Amino acid sequence: MSWEGVIPSEEVIAATEELLKTAEKVGADTWQQRVRNQTPHCGFGESGTCCRICSMGPCRISKKAPRGICGCDVHGIVARNYLRFTAGGAATHSDHGRSIAHTLYKSSPDSDYKVKDEEKLLRIAKEWEIETEGRDIYDVAHDVALAGLNEYGKPFGTQRFLKRAPLLRQQIWESQDISPRAIDREVSQSMHMTHMGCSSDPEALVRQALRAGLSDGWGGSMMGTEFSDILFGTPKPIDTEANIGVMEEDMVNIIVHGHDPSLSEMIVFYANDPEMIALAKEQGAKGINIAGVCCTSNEVAMRHGIPMAGNFLAQENVVLTGACEAIVVDVQCIFPALGPLSKCFHTKFITTSHIAKIPDSEFIEFDEANAGENAKKIIRLAIMNFKNRDPELVNIPKQKSKATVGYSVEAIKKCLDGVTNSHVDELGTMKPLVDAVKSGVIRGAVAMVGCNNPKIRPDSFHVDLMKRLLENDILVVVSGCSAQAAAKVGLMDKEAAKYCGEGLKRVCRLVDIPPVLHMGSCVDISRMMVLASDIAKDWGIEISEIPLVGCAPEWMSEKAVSIGNYVVATGIDTFLGVDPYTKGSDQVRGFLQSGIKDWVGANFIVNNDIDMLTTMMIEHIEEKREALGI
Amino acid sequence: MSWEGVIPSEEVIAATEELLKTAEKVGADTWQQRVRNQTPHCGFGESGTCCRICSMGPCRISKKAPRGICGCDVHGIVARNYLRFTAGGAATHSDHGRSIAHTLYKSSPDSDYKVKDEEKLLRIAKEWEIETEGRDIYDVAHDVALAGLNEYGKPFGTQRFLKRAPLLRQQIWESQDISPRAIDREVSQSMHMTHMGCSSDPEALVRQALRAGLSDGWGGSMMGTEFSDILFGTPKPIDTEANIGVMEEDMVNIIVHGHDPSLSEMIVFYANDPEMIALAKEQGAKGINIAGVCCTSNEVAMRHGIPMAGNFLAQENVVLTGACEAIVVDVQCIFPALGPLSKCFHTKFITTSHIAKIPDSEFIEFDEANAGENAKKIIRLAIMNFKNRDPELVNIPKQKSKATVGYSVEAIKKCLDGVTNSHVDELGTMKPLVDAVKSGVIRGAVAMVGCNNPKIRPDSFHVDLMKRLLENDILVVVSGCSAQAAAKVGLMDKEAAKYCGEGLKRVCRLVDIPPVLHMGSCVDISRMMVLASDIAKDWGIEISEIPLVGCAPEWMSEKAVSIGNYVVATGIDTFLGVDPYTKGSDQVRGFLQSGIKDWVGANFIVNNDIDMLTTMMIEHIEEKREALGI
Repeated sequence: MSWEGVIPSEEVIAATEELLKTAEKVGADTWQQRVRNQTPHCGFGESGTCCRICSMGPCRISKKAPRGICGCDVHGIVARNYLRFTAGGAATHSDHGRSIAHTLYKSSPDSDYKVKDEEKLLRIAKEWEIETEGRDIYDVAHDVALAGLNEYGKPFGTQRFLKRAPLLRQQIWESQDISPRAIDREVSQSMHMTHMGCSSDPEALVRQALRAGLSDGWGGSMMGTEFSDILFGTPKPIDTEANIGVMEEDMVNIIVHGHDPSLSEMIVFYANDPEMIALAKEQGAKGINIAGVCCTSNEVAMRHGIPMAGNFLAQENVVLTGACEAIVVDVQCIFPALGPLSKCFHTKFITTSHIAKIPDSEFIEFDEANAGENAKKIIRLAIMNFKNRDPELVNIPKQKSKATVGYSVEAIKKCLDGVTNSHVDELGTMKPLVDAVKSGVIRGAVAMVGCNNPKIRPDSFHVDLMKRLLENDILVVVSGCSAQAAAKVGLMDKEAAKYCGEGLKRVCRLVDIPPVLHMGSCVDISRMMVLASDIAKDWGIEISEIPLVGCAPEWMSEKAVSIGNYVVATGIDTFLGVDPYTKGSDQVRGFLQSGIKDWVGANFIVNNDIDMLTTMMIEHIEEKREALGI
Repeated sequence: MSWEGVIPSEEVIAATEELLKTAEKVGADTWQQRVRNQTPHCGFGESGTCCRICSMGPCRISKKAPRGICGCDVHGIVARNYLRFTAGGAATHSDHGRSIAHTLYKSSPDSDYKVKDEEKLLRIAKEWEIETEGRDIYDVAHDVALAGLNEYGKPFGTQRFLKRAPLLRQQIWESQDISPRAIDREVSQSMHMTHMGCSSDPEALVRQALRAGLSDGWGGSMMGTEFSDILFGTPKPIDTEANIGVMEEDMVNIIVHGHDPSLSEMIVFYANDPEMIALAKEQGAKGINIAGVCCTSNEVAMRHGIPMAGNFLAQENVVLTGACEAIVVDVQCIFPALGPLSKCFHTKFITTSHIAKIPDSEFIEFDEANAGENAKKIIRLAIMNFKNRDPELVNIPKQKSKATVGYSVEAIKKCLDGVTNSHVDELGTMKPLVDAVKSGVIRGAVAMVGCNNPKIRPDSFHVDLMKRLLENDILVVVSGCSAQAAAKVGLMDKEAAKYCGEGLKRVCRLVDIPPVLHMGSCVDISRMMVLASDIAKDWGIEISEIPLVGCAPEWMSEKAVSIGNYVVATGIDTFLGVDPYTKGSDQVRGFLQSGIKDWVGANFIVNNDIDMLTTMMIEHIEEKREALGI
């Protein structure tokens, strides 16, 4: 199969090399250099066998020292580190969800934050048994938000959204004692269990990691997704462009970066303000160009078609173009390096959240009360900075690809409705997709997610995996940095159907979708959980029986490990290209990569050989098919 | 000054040496050996300059590599680690408090858990504006518990107990933006702020550490203390004994170890059951001897006079006596080493909590529903194990001291009432103490707390410091392992007044107290916060003006750092004998050891030279006196 229309990795590498030359010219530090400085990594840390949980140590497990000072063995240490890693991710995703819930709570018809998707709001209100009849929509929004906020700290009961899962899955969670209670409680309990002198039994620690993960995926993240949809609209297919070439040489380039759409939505909105555009023109620019990096990019691409400049390891590149007037960030995955880097250029590095205060940035606080005003202030700063560009440093690589994004579960169902015979079949179900899988036209699906990690050439695992899967008639649904990896090279162009196996090609053309479906940001992996649940329900099987696997080939953040835990705990085998610091304990690896299958019907598979990883994924899908007799 | 009645350190060392010979005989591992194996510690870890927060690393800051791969500098890395350390402690203490709140919620007249201190319950109900008039006491208990549980996760507002502080202190917290909101939220937000790509500004991270600490000290810990008092009684002065010699050669020795009194109270209660005593006698023992280790010991010593066998680094010693039939634990500070160690003896190592599952233990689940039944089961197991002792291994060092313990704030006030002229002055105030300090009879007070740490010869800093303070007419209030260090050598004997300076000696004899006042377990440092607040109010000054300092000379756990944060944030300078992994950043040290004084009127002082530490503490107290003009 030839992939001639897709941007080849050599071109991507060449463009980055050019940008690195600029870095050298201005004396800027880059992650490529810092990786060299930090290599080799500490072997204890990498294998998870170093413990710094109390101040008797740090302790490191070796042949000479098989136990820490407290007597904890290597399995306890590795498992504790693993649980804390998970808790960090669950807390982070969920705190993002909390922030959105607070925004929803403060929404009102005359504030910057309004209810945009009433239908979803009412649906969730009904799901949560909140009165809707004859009520003002903002009263309902207020109650839904409050109920959501209470999911973080209610003293009794488990997460409301668990009921969205098939009954059998809910029973598995109950019987395995991993149904998550209040989200923050699971985080705090994870910290408590891993405190000096508490749990050192790896089984107990891994079990809590699954529960903490579930509190994220079926709790905080799901609220983050759903409440964002209520406030900013549920995504539907929309065309956009991706890759560094979306930056415009003759426009004011404002990069939005981070995760919480509450900021980026306002920037996008006010950048369309005629007053702002006029000011930009006054300053000699043709207009204002907003582009995104990381999950913020996914959020505004899915809802407004805002172009995607890059993913995690491309964040320095946008500054290195010399054409970035401002990089505006909220929370998570923001390189502190952007501080000193932006100082080498004219770029304004603007932080906005108390959660993410970063040295060498300009802090402009951003909350519900001052959103509009401060969005305008930020845009104005960027515009007035246009004239400060050094033309000699401007170099925007010409790479960009077309992409169609915005495949929320609701949007996917709508697409499927298009191929449903409404005289015979129900609309709004996953059945057409199920039928395609049953018949073998599509062999199955992979949910590909997660970050970049310098341990892997950026995007290479994402893209190589996707290509092989598509060739094998396996549909790919993506989110986060994986989504951008696909979009950047052109795999989200509907035209990319032509590269797929015959079955998948036919389906894509019939349903009018690209073969790689952009489902959103990293909190939106909750969408994938709902998708899997709906497929299981419409198919009449358990989630773990679906020919579906998860994959995070280039993950790097704690959030990714939290995600891994909830995806596996939802019954979906998950393939990782980077080990989560567990190499040091065969027991912990034993649980994660095998033992937990007995608990939840799925487990992790870790392999940093891209070919083996792909082959195993395809085999897994075929085994699931075989087990189903299809 | 001669301290001839106090057990000298040489004797303590000699007794331990004897026990270590037994360890050698049975081939058991001990912390002394593990410390040798783990030395030297990793310099990166010890200075806080290693980051494992994402999987791009681990990164370590050095001259060659001044920034992590994300670009975070050494200050961001050290500060993040510091905040996470604090969050671990805050979560742990507070989760203990939550567990007590759940127990209170389930209390009933015919369960094992009853309301013992109705007066305190009603007082807190009134404080929290919960209706009490004409209501069943258990209905009130239920409402207070529920309100307490909601302090962990309420979406809005700050901690209820903050109002106990003097108004000026509350205003400081507000103006510094460190008034803690829901407890678990502060933990989760700390995890979020320290996630990859969030905060790397040390000021923001240190500020959140103070807030997370306050959510512990004025939130979770304070509820842990108060609700324990409601359930099990508010401590009042009671005589007991301390040190390893409290174990009895001819009795069934059951050691309770951990933190949550819900377990130990039941063990103590049912060990007095005539049926159990008869069974013990049947098995050839003279009876059942319950003794404690760590904070569990403090809890039952304060309320029932249960003898204290030892503190943190003595936990292996109780097993090494060969006379420990069972060591029963709940949560925190439990050496996983007790698993393999107990296997070298007849000792049953019984774990009881899902929070602390430990390999090589017997797990007997313990909760409100099965408390009585399982307490009896545990006691029976211990009794039936008496015959399995190997007489050749039995060696109980003869060391023990008398101690008077149980100085809750209420008890201290009651003692002071004894020297108040009730015709002239109000009862139930701190005024007699304030007057003694004002007049200079007592120069001031030190709140000494915290653990043991092998980096310091166990108890040596605690005891040496106390001796010098007492000689200098400085009253010492203690909790946790520091309390046991004092009790073990005899400093809690009322007779110890004779070693004090003339002023303190006179006060101790007049008020009939020992010169070192046992205020409880490590959650009970909340008592010290109330004490300081009441002193400030009765004196009419701000907390930071009181000639009072905090000190944790041998701390080792995350809880201790959380404590340090809230003690400092309460306005009390705090002296540490061990550095909290911050050596790597002058900025972080700058904030903690100086800068935060501008925020909260107090800071940390870190010094591992015991003489300098003592001198500085005394100087600090004298400076406070001078500033007050007394």
